[in-house]
Formats: sequence, C-alpha cells, structure tokens
Amino acid sequence: MRAVEWNPIGPSVRVIDQRQLPARVECIDLSTVDDVAKAISGMTVRGAPTIGATAGFGLALAAHTSDVVDLSGLWEEMARAARRLQAARPTAINLAWALERITRRVREVAPASGGAAQAAFLHQAQRLADDEVARNRRIGLQGAALLNDGDTLIHHCHTGGLAAVDYGTALGIVRAAHEQGKRLHVLVDETRPRLQGSRLTAWELQQLGISFEIITDSAAGTFLRRGEVQAVLVGADRVAANGDVANKIGTYMLALAASASRVPFYAVFPTSTVDLGCPDGDTIPIEDRPAEEILALSIDGQPAAPAGSRARNPAFDVTPHALITALVTEAGVYLPPFDAALRRATQEGMSA
Amino acid sequence: MRAVEWNPIGPSVRVIDQRQLPARVECIDLSTVDDVAKAISGMTVRGAPTIGATAGFGLALAAHTSDVVDLSGLWEEMARAARRLQAARPTAINLAWALERITRRVREVAPASGGAAQAAFLHQAQRLADDEVARNRRIGLQGAALLNDGDTLIHHCHTGGLAAVDYGTALGIVRAAHEQGKRLHVLVDETRPRLQGSRLTAWELQQLGISFEIITDSAAGTFLRRGEVQAVLVGADRVAANGDVANKIGTYMLALAASASRVPFYAVFPTSTVDLGCPDGDTIPIEDRPAEEILALSIDGQPAAPAGSRARNPAFDVTPHALITALVTEAGVYLPPFDAALRRATQEGMSA
Repeated sequence: MRAVEWNPIGPSVRVIDQRQLPARVECIDLSTVDDVAKAISGMTVRGAPTIGATAGFGLALAAHTSDVVDLSGLWEEMARAARRLQAARPTAINLAWALERITRRVREVAPASGGAAQAAFLHQAQRLADDEVARNRRIGLQGAALLNDGDTLIHHCHTGGLAAVDYGTALGIVRAAHEQGKRLHVLVDETRPRLQGSRLTAWELQQLGISFEIITDSAAGTFLRRGEVQAVLVGADRVAANGDVANKIGTYMLALAASASRVPFYAVFPTSTVDLGCPDGDTIPIEDRPAEEILALSIDGQPAAPAGSRARNPAFDVTPHALITALVTEAGVYLPPFDAALRRATQEGMSA
Repeated sequence: MRAVEWNPIGPSVRVIDQRQLPARVECIDLSTVDDVAKAISGMTVRGAPTIGATAGFGLALAAHTSDVVDLSGLWEEMARAARRLQAARPTAINLAWALERITRRVREVAPASGGAAQAAFLHQAQRLADDEVARNRRIGLQGAALLNDGDTLIHHCHTGGLAAVDYGTALGIVRAAHEQGKRLHVLVDETRPRLQGSRLTAWELQQLGISFEIITDSAAGTFLRRGEVQAVLVGADRVAANGDVANKIGTYMLALAASASRVPFYAVFPTSTVDLGCPDGDTIPIEDRPAEEILALSIDGQPAAPAGSRARNPAFDVTPHALITALVTEAGVYLPPFDAALRRATQEGMSA
C-alpha cells in the first residue's frame, strides 16, 4: 500500500505508522481531522510529499465527517480544518500547498450541495496523491541519468515511498537507476535524532534489494574525503526561489563536505516543494522539535544524557544554493543559476 | 578520583568505568595486563591522554604481577605486555608514546633487581599521569585567553577529566575560563555513535556548573551559520607533523562548518599527542570499530535498523590543518603554519 490512502469504510485516512518501522508494518486509521493533524505533528507520517497528501485526505475527511447541512457552514468548517492541519508542521511547504490547491480546485467546480462538496474534496485529494506518485516516477527518470553503474552514493534522511506517497524522490532516483540495471551502493546516513535513515531508508533499500551500509551522519565527510563516493542525494522540505533548500537537519553539513571533496550534490523534490514566496532560505520557517527526541535514547541500555539536561533540536537546516550541483524535479534537472528555472518549472507544475 | 589511578592493594589499575556514565560513577579494578588492554579496546576507559596513562599503569602492573625472577626475563615479559597494550587501540598515539617513554626511562635508571624495576615502572607510570594533569592545567591557562565572557562554544566528543586523567584538554580550557569568572555556554555535540558528548561532556559540565545544551552532531552547522557560536573546541587523538588532526569521527565536518562561517576552530591537546613520525593526516591509522556501535541503539524502544543491516564505523577522521585556526598545547597557542611550532613544542615537551 501507499504511505497514505483513503479508506472509504469509516471513512478514514489510512496511513503506515512510520514510527513502528523497521520493527513492523502497521497501519493506522485516522478518523478525525484532529487525528490527522496529530499524526503529522507526531511524525506518524513524515516526508514532505506524504505530509501534503495526508493533509489533503484530512480535508476530504473534514468534508465527509461534517454534520453541517448548509454549504456556507461547510466552507467555514473546511477553513477551520485547513487551519488545524496547516499548523501541524511549519517547514514542509507541501502541506500549505496541498490545502491551497485542493480548496481552490473545489471552489472552481462550485459544488451545489454538501454531498457534491464531499465528493469534490475527495476527488481532489486523491488526484493530488496520484499526481505526487506520477511526479516521483518522472523525477526518477530525470535523475537516473545522473548515476552510473557501480556508483557509491550518500543519502540523508528518508526520501523513499513512505516519504513521498509512493516510489520516492531522491530515493526514487536510486530506485529508477536500479530498475535500469545499474549496480549501486548506498551509504545511508542514520539521520539523528529520529534515525529515518537507519530505520526507513535502510528498510526500503532492503525491500528493493539495493546494496547499502549505515553510517553515522558525522562520518559522511570521511567517505567523501577518501574518494569513495560519486554522488550525494537528498530531498527537500521547502525550496526557496533562489534554490536554497530547507531539508532534514544535517543536510547543510553534508553539502559542505560534498563541496569540499568536489562530489556532486543533488537536491531532489517535486515542484510542489518549491515556495516562490520565500526569496531565500533564511526566510523559510525552521521547526524546533522537542528536546526529548535527542535525549530519549538508550545505548547499551544506558541513558544518553544526565537527568536535567536540555537540548536544542532544530529539525531542518538550510543549504545555500551555492553548495548544490543540481536540482532534480519532475520537470527537469537544473544547473545553477536556479531562480529562473524554478520559476518556470513551478508554474508548469502548478498548471499540470 | 582521577580517570585512572594505581591501587597499591592488589595491586591493580583502578579506572572509572566510562561506559556506566551518566547513570552511575563506578570504579573497576583491573588486575591483569589483559584486563587493562580490554578496558582500553572496549572503551571502559577512553580519551587519548587517559588511554596513555592507563597503558602506563598497565606496564607497572605487568612488572608487579610478574613471577619471573631474573631481570632479562622480566624485560622480555615487559616487552610482551607493551605489545599487548599497544595493540588495544591504533589511533591515539599517546598509547605508544606512554609505553615508549616509560620503558626508555626505566632503562635509563638501569634497575639492578626485579624489585627495583617494579618500583621504577610504577614511578614512571605515576609521573606520566601526573605530568598529563599538569599539562592540562597549563593548556587551560594557555587557551582560556581565547574565550570571552558571554561566549557560546561548540564542543565535540569528550575532552574533560575522564578523557585526560584529570581536568581535561579542550574542556580544560572551558573549565579554566569558567574558573576565571567568564560566563560560557556550551553546545554539546552528542557525538555518535557512542554519545561521549551527551553522556560524558554533559555530565562533567553539569558537575562544574557550566551552562550547556545538547545538540545532534549534524545540527552544529546550523548554529554556526546563524552566528550563535564564537568558537569551536575539539581534542585530538593524534596530530601529524603538518598539523593535520585525527580526532573523533565528526570533527572534520564540524571544522568545515566552522570554516564556512568563519568561526575560530581550535584543536587542543598535550604535546604527547603529536606524532612527528606522521608527515600528514593521511598517514595516521584510523580505527574501524564494530558495526554494533551504530546498530545497537534503541529509540522510543524501537530498533534503530532492520535486522541484517550492515554499518561502517570509522572511529576517527582527519581534519586538514588548513581548517584549523590554532593549535593549543601546554607549550603555547600556535597559529599556522604549524609544522615548525609543533616540532619545537614536541621536543620541549619530550624533554620536560
């Protein structure tokens, strides 16, 4: 199944609980908008495109579970639901983008009844999820040409099917190249603090039969410096108009290391991740997450930090565009300067 | 107590078990050379100067527990013990240095009996440990002048008293500046995979009443880029003749980030950590440690990686001298070029 689907019985939004992996594949049915918002903020679902699609189905759920009879009341309730979902996580722009696109398109068809509105919201949410998967396959084909048979890659965080509804973005490129018969080896950044790399990326690579080894985030520089790595692939949670990329914490230091060793560094994302409203990365809001994500760790059964310790936990960082070799989207592979290409690709993507 | 001490009852080498911290302060008595070697390789004790001093007491233990009666037999046994201790860990040069210095000095005094040799080995091991502590206090005074009241620092791994017999090296500078009344705040790199930062550095800073917050290693670049950090301090496990520094994995990426944000990056170590036999960092042997150190982690009670995953775990990396603002030793603070200064300081340090 996909990372997120509509379950008509209930109805509910059915998601794979990403917190349970790799121990087990477990689905959860989210039956209220509040449940959906909590699943996003608590990282039951994560990954920018999956967050967007989940919020989209959350809107459809709001329409289906509403007991308001008149249309204007329904629209008010939908606005409230959108605000609740929007507030769940601040950095991934796909969330705001999905809510805006779905709402706008339902308004365009001007449903004449509550039932028609329900159907329209579900149709648009489903279409958005399908579009993301189709985009991912196009991203895979665009990017696969960047990888050669025998390459060793470094990948940060998780950008596979779970993160992107299905198939994956940066990891989709690895998958597409693997499907073309290229033999690849992936050094998987474990990605502290939540270990999306060692938990999710390793699991998906294992399922796909792609060779990998897990490394600590801080070891990536050593493998780059030794000349063992031919390319670095990361996703994105929001891309500014100038090509600066907000992505999982650690991406910036990885980009510095790739740049120092002159290894190509590719940021990979669907055009739904571009925010032309942010002129540069410094205007992208960066989420601070709870200290417990860092402190609630045990190693050899021992606590990771003394009682009473505090921690700072920015969940994302900004990689300046100057450190990025190319941006890979479903619309093409872009070399610097990125601004005009991103403007064009985004407008095409939006009209698609 | 110190990180390592001679226990005349037994006799044994008494060490603080660093694997138990911060949960509890627990001492272990090591009563054979093999126990001492295993305590070093298994990281019951760690930190380059502490490793050196522990190996030194291990030699004294070999002399005391020997049942060989003739002097030439004893010297053969000491050579075997030195080889066993030397093999425990490959990167920290202090280990080889301590064994060589102690053996040379005992040979110089030419003990006439087994008993005299025992006393001489113990005397030299004790003197070496005392020297390291005295060096650390001088390092603290040399380096404290680099820190200003109100500074926020980033520190990687652990370089406090536990790592350096007592007082500390890089952390000794923080301690000395704190004793001078400077208010400092330390962002503590947790330091994957064994979390020496969040387990040991946080614990020592808490004991000393110095303000700190724990961060993931991969977040350091963000705080540097935001302009929140005035200096970065790290220790060293071996310093090459040209000033390249081998230190805990992650140091190199941290140095890249400090350099990109033009924040001073200081490598701090006693002259016993310099190896003029290595012309540059690429000639320093880098220890690969077991994959389990990365994989044997639980987060929220979940396994960190799917069963059957492999990992690569280089324990150290090399930071090229060009990324280092200054080297701080007990003999002085050195700006680039480092080679002549290191040669001079090491010769002075050796004759001290």
